[in-house]
Amino acid sequence: MGNCCERLGPQKNTYMRVSLPAVCFVWQIAMIVLFGVFIRYDKESDAHWVEYKHKNNLTDLENDFYFRYPSFQDVHVMIFVGFGFLMTFLKRYSYGGVGFNFLIASFGLQWALLMQGWFHSLDLDTGKIYIGVENIINADFCCAGSLIAFGALLGKVSPVQLMVVTLFGVTLFAVEEYIILDLLHCRDAGGSMVIHCFGGYYGLAISWVLYRPNLHQSKHLHGSNYQSDLFAMIGTLFLWMFWPSFNGAISYHGDGQHRAFINTYIALASSVLTAVALSSMFHKRGKLDMVHIQNATLAGAVTMGTSAEFMITPYGSLIVGFCMGIISTFGYVFVTPFLEKTLKLQDTCGIHNLHAVPGMLGGFLGAVVAAAANEDVYGKEGLINVFDKEGKYANRGMGTQGGYQAAGTCVSIAFGLVGGAIVGLILKIPIWGDAADDHCFDDEAYWELPEEEEEILPPVLEYNNHMTHKSQDIAESSFCAEQC
Amino acid sequence: MGNCCERLGPQKNTYMRVSLPAVCFVWQIAMIVLFGVFIRYDKESDAHWVEYKHKNNLTDLENDFYFRYPSFQDVHVMIFVGFGFLMTFLKRYSYGGVGFNFLIASFGLQWALLMQGWFHSLDLDTGKIYIGVENIINADFCCAGSLIAFGALLGKVSPVQLMVVTLFGVTLFAVEEYIILDLLHCRDAGGSMVIHCFGGYYGLAISWVLYRPNLHQSKHLHGSNYQSDLFAMIGTLFLWMFWPSFNGAISYHGDGQHRAFINTYIALASSVLTAVALSSMFHKRGKLDMVHIQNATLAGAVTMGTSAEFMITPYGSLIVGFCMGIISTFGYVFVTPFLEKTLKLQDTCGIHNLHAVPGMLGGFLGAVVAAAANEDVYGKEGLINVFDKEGKYANRGMGTQGGYQAAGTCVSIAFGLVGGAIVGLILKIPIWGDAADDHCFDDEAYWELPEEEEEILPPVLEYNNHMTHKSQDIAESSFCAEQC
Amino acid sequence: MGNCCERLGPQKNTYMRVSLPAVCFVWQIAMIVLFGVFIRYDKESDAHWVEYKHKNNLTDLENDFYFRYPSFQDVHVMIFVGFGFLMTFLKRYSYGGVGFNFLIASFGLQWALLMQGWFHSLDLDTGKIYIGVENIINADFCCAGSLIAFGALLGKVSPVQLMVVTLFGVTLFAVEEYIILDLLHCRDAGGSMVIHCFGGYYGLAISWVLYRPNLHQSKHLHGSNYQSDLFAMIGTLFLWMFWPSFNGAISYHGDGQHRAFINTYIALASSVLTAVALSSMFHKRGKLDMVHIQNATLAGAVTMGTSAEFMITPYGSLIVGFCMGIISTFGYVFVTPFLEKTLKLQDTCGIHNLHAVPGMLGGFLGAVVAAAANEDVYGKEGLINVFDKEGKYANRGMGTQGGYQAAGTCVSIAFGLVGGAIVGLILKIPIWGDAADDHCFDDEAYWELPEEEEEILPPVLEYNNHMTHKSQDIAESSFCAEQC
Repeated sequence: MGNCCERLGPQKNTYMRVSLPAVCFVWQIAMIVLFGVFIRYDKESDAHWVEYKHKNNLTDLENDFYFRYPSFQDVHVMIFVGFGFLMTFLKRYSYGGVGFNFLIASFGLQWALLMQGWFHSLDLDTGKIYIGVENIINADFCCAGSLIAFGALLGKVSPVQLMVVTLFGVTLFAVEEYIILDLLHCRDAGGSMVIHCFGGYYGLAISWVLYRPNLHQSKHLHGSNYQSDLFAMIGTLFLWMFWPSFNGAISYHGDGQHRAFINTYIALASSVLTAVALSSMFHKRGKLDMVHIQNATLAGAVTMGTSAEFMITPYGSLIVGFCMGIISTFGYVFVTPFLEKTLKLQDTCGIHNLHAVPGMLGGFLGAVVAAAANEDVYGKEGLINVFDKEGKYANRGMGTQGGYQAAGTCVSIAFGLVGGAIVGLILKIPIWGDAADDHCFDDEAYWELPEEEEEILPPVLEYNNHMTHKSQDIAESSFCAEQC
Repeated sequence: MGNCCERLGPQKNTYMRVSLPAVCFVWQIAMIVLFGVFIRYDKESDAHWVEYKHKNNLTDLENDFYFRYPSFQDVHVMIFVGFGFLMTFLKRYSYGGVGFNFLIASFGLQWALLMQGWFHSLDLDTGKIYIGVENIINADFCCAGSLIAFGALLGKVSPVQLMVVTLFGVTLFAVEEYIILDLLHCRDAGGSMVIHCFGGYYGLAISWVLYRPNLHQSKHLHGSNYQSDLFAMIGTLFLWMFWPSFNGAISYHGDGQHRAFINTYIALASSVLTAVALSSMFHKRGKLDMVHIQNATLAGAVTMGTSAEFMITPYGSLIVGFCMGIISTFGYVFVTPFLEKTLKLQDTCGIHNLHAVPGMLGGFLGAVVAAAANEDVYGKEGLINVFDKEGKYANRGMGTQGGYQAAGTCVSIAFGLVGGAIVGLILKIPIWGDAADDHCFDDEAYWELPEEEEEILPPVLEYNNHMTHKSQDIAESSFCAEQC
Repeated sequence: MGNCCERLGPQKNTYMRVSLPAVCFVWQIAMIVLFGVFIRYDKESDAHWVEYKHKNNLTDLENDFYFRYPSFQDVHVMIFVGFGFLMTFLKRYSYGGVGFNFLIASFGLQWALLMQGWFHSLDLDTGKIYIGVENIINADFCCAGSLIAFGALLGKVSPVQLMVVTLFGVTLFAVEEYIILDLLHCRDAGGSMVIHCFGGYYGLAISWVLYRPNLHQSKHLHGSNYQSDLFAMIGTLFLWMFWPSFNGAISYHGDGQHRAFINTYIALASSVLTAVALSSMFHKRGKLDMVHIQNATLAGAVTMGTSAEFMITPYGSLIVGFCMGIISTFGYVFVTPFLEKTLKLQDTCGIHNLHAVPGMLGGFLGAVVAAAANEDVYGKEGLINVFDKEGKYANRGMGTQGGYQAAGTCVSIAFGLVGGAIVGLILKIPIWGDAADDHCFDDEAYWELPEEEEEILPPVLEYNNHMTHKSQDIAESSFCAEQC
């Protein structure tokens, strides 16, 4: 790129050669030690399964693996390709979008296996965590919270900062999940509360603390181009297609998974139509905006997260999708710019409109649907099964359950906002290698970029490589020549 | 964009700000009302499953969800990523290809759940349609018919027109499917007849009625570039890989699904080799053409649709793939240009060669294979099972079955041609916002496009942004300069 | 392309119009004949399954299809999208990367069904090979060996040569697999030995024989650009996500598949962190290199191939991933350039660091893990089950088993090196249509490429289309003009 013009703004040091390897090595070695102390195979993935199976008169098919593995792989695709490619939409930060997503999800899932294990699966007799396919799915879910937060920070933080965001994000997630699912005994199959609401507010709070007053200096890179928006559509579509698996992956076997999947599928279809409608309505010439197509089309599934396994009815799911397509697109058009202007909240991907608000609404929707549940609709056994009304929760009334669900939503918001503010303050310490305000949204800072275009010329031309500019440069120079 | 030169041709109004939102809202609200009246969970996705399961001594694994969900997700990927990205091959209509595919499939599957429900799953006692995973798969299948038709119209119609194409397409599909599968009692697991043959001729008939005499004025945009052809390969490969699931998704449990999958897998492999061979043979310097690699490699699976669950034998499948790779490539090289010249048939994606003809041949192939079936090959129970010879069809001879299969193929062609002609006439009414002949294949009409390239320059250069034109604008301006 | 300047180097003839179609037709027809003679449905995919099921009191769910189909589809995606898009990283050889991968995998899987069938599934009574879902998975695995070899040759050989590489590659694979799995009775669930080690050394040996002394003349095309590296990330991520399915696809039902999947998942996560760490450490300004992110992140899974179904423990898997991320990145930075300089070994994709070495280490790791196995850890029945200690192998000690595993690794290396050297010599015969040293890494030789950019100009400019050259042509012609 042309070097004859000095860039504006103070230069920050984005040199990561010490800090990034150090963080990766230290944390990975810590994981190995902790896995060595705590993590073991559960009885369905241990070689003793053959004996266990014979003793309990089971068949191989009753191994939980066969119930959940197809859903797991869909969730896995959502985490790595879905979230990853969704964040390639910036024209010069696509490597960072997909690459850092890859890095932090890979770290996050290891830490999640430990954190969630300590809170949910620790065997107090042996002091070990026994893992199987369901733990793995939950670890992927847990990463999702931090990846959502990444969306608000995209292009403005260093990979080391993202590792910190993930370390604390996963930790906070495991605690709020424990409070919501275990202490409050809420149901949240697809994680409207624990994943999306928490992750959304966590990211927004961090971004608010890290406010960059001169971010407009990077405005020339804060946008997409034709190709980058197509790459982002890969992310959108894989998220959209596999979200039914996401919402049903850890539901109960049988009707629970089946219903979660149908409800999500239907809500998503409805979101697409209203997102398209509003995108066109809000454009002065009626054109569609890729930002809305890439994001608002997914909002219905986020909001269905908690209620997906409930008997919300197919038309109820359609209504949810209908409203969320509208609310989310409205958010992209009006709320995000408003928040940036008034609250100084810079939210690169607009997670406010795709995760925070839809997740929160999903939590409250779940509360209403739970409160309205009764034996007529669910059947006696069905009601017990869906709401896990066993043991000390056997006599909790449905209205009370609804209240707890609402309380759970508030817990997730509180954890997101407070946790995010604290993590944001930690990230303000000027040791993390983030870029200056005029170098944001630029892969140049952290990636070895290929030299573009000029190298396509045949070798003989290399002798005259002052000739081998980009087409743009060529055109400019001929233009200039003409002017002279 | 440069305005100094007036473009040729009459300007048409592509302003969608009223019509597109209106159609989306009205139709989506209609869906909500109709779902509210008609659609309920079936017994395998209802919370009463727990009780039903205990009463009938079933296990959760016998919930149809576990038989069909992996196949469903593959089909879902084909519909949204497969068809969607296959249609990104045009260099300036990639947003339209993947975006409108997304829109109309999302609407289509809702309408399909209703239409197919009324014809196939309506409980006459309660007046309700009970849906489960098999209905969802069929809804995706039903959309495929309209998405195929979209292939012929790509770049030439407005999104509102596409919504109309889908509304009628799904309606016609449900009727012809009812006639073919229920009244004629044909077998058509992978939909050679009901999906591909119908969808292909439906799209061709619409395109024929909508003939644009001056389409050559958009010739400069009617082609691919290096990147857009790579994006299209994503679509091709996901279609290719998951087609075995498509052909087996609604086959009978056990050997039916297993065999449909093996036959399709084998036929596809064979198609690739002959498509490559002919692509090279037909190029004057022996080079391969991406159009053939993207499309003709899939033709074997289309033709295997009907016969996939039959005992066509592995080498039979290879022969089908072999022939279809040849026929389809031949079609792209000779038949499509011929049809455009003589019949005035403009078929953007060449669906004639990938869906219409292979689907029709698949229908007739199925007739022959069915007529040749006997108890030696299938076994007594196998023959009953594969051809569903129960009730009043128990005594239908295999020759007769073959005759009905052939008749079914003719029904699908007739529905496609007549239905398409009528829908084409409706779309000729000049209220739908389609682009003028010289503005086809251009996302500019319906999408807010990112500004290209110039913004990558550092901010200081913005003071001189008269320097930072696109290459196109530059070329235009130098042209203009010369003219002056 | 502009012809006014002669390119350097002797012109080779890349005209494939006769040879490529001939090879495709002859080999495809041979496949049809051989399938006709040998291949039949097995009892689970034959229509007699209904009778067989009733006779043996089975349910449809016990059809192997339902155990393996989800894993199969993941493997299939890895072969076609994973390997295919991973090889699109070259800026002007993306069509060749994904397209030739498609061609040779489609041929290879047919030949593999036959070769593996003759060695493993031939029924000596009937002389037939009976195929089901497990054979299909193995056929995909068998292709992987040749696709790995393709990685070393990328951009330097013609499609006809690749067909030869695949023909011999599949043949050699089936023989070495028979020796390793059947004669030596090794376990190798994910194919560290039989797939990666063999495929890696096979490709390296071919590449070594085909050494091109003047390859530097194509240096201008031997690299990526911003978009091509993003396309390659699609390949990387699908390989990364689905590798757990790859390593578990043909493991035993139940705990075997479950454990293989968990171990691989964990090892992969760990590889990402150390690959990122080393990539940053080895760059003088601490930046990340896409080559390492695309490749070294996968190395852990390659090495886990043999041991994935063993009780290697979760932290053992983490350690393997940790080491392999380091070793593989180190290989890309130092070993590949060293080998090119000293051994004259040109390895386009660096398969030495992703397949050959990690595969070999995986083989030896498997030997150690097997030798250390005992009844305490596996349980009595578990040990028999995991190591298939039945029949004449019932009394083989675990130390001996480890010895055989190590011997198996040596067999795979020997087959790769010797077989590759011979195939390389065959490919040196100057009849195969490979490009000259200064035309490597260029799709121009074998693909009809879309004309770039100029066609985006508005139609009025077509009258002056002497203005509408490609940027390259412009540059060339202005250069030539200057020269004159």
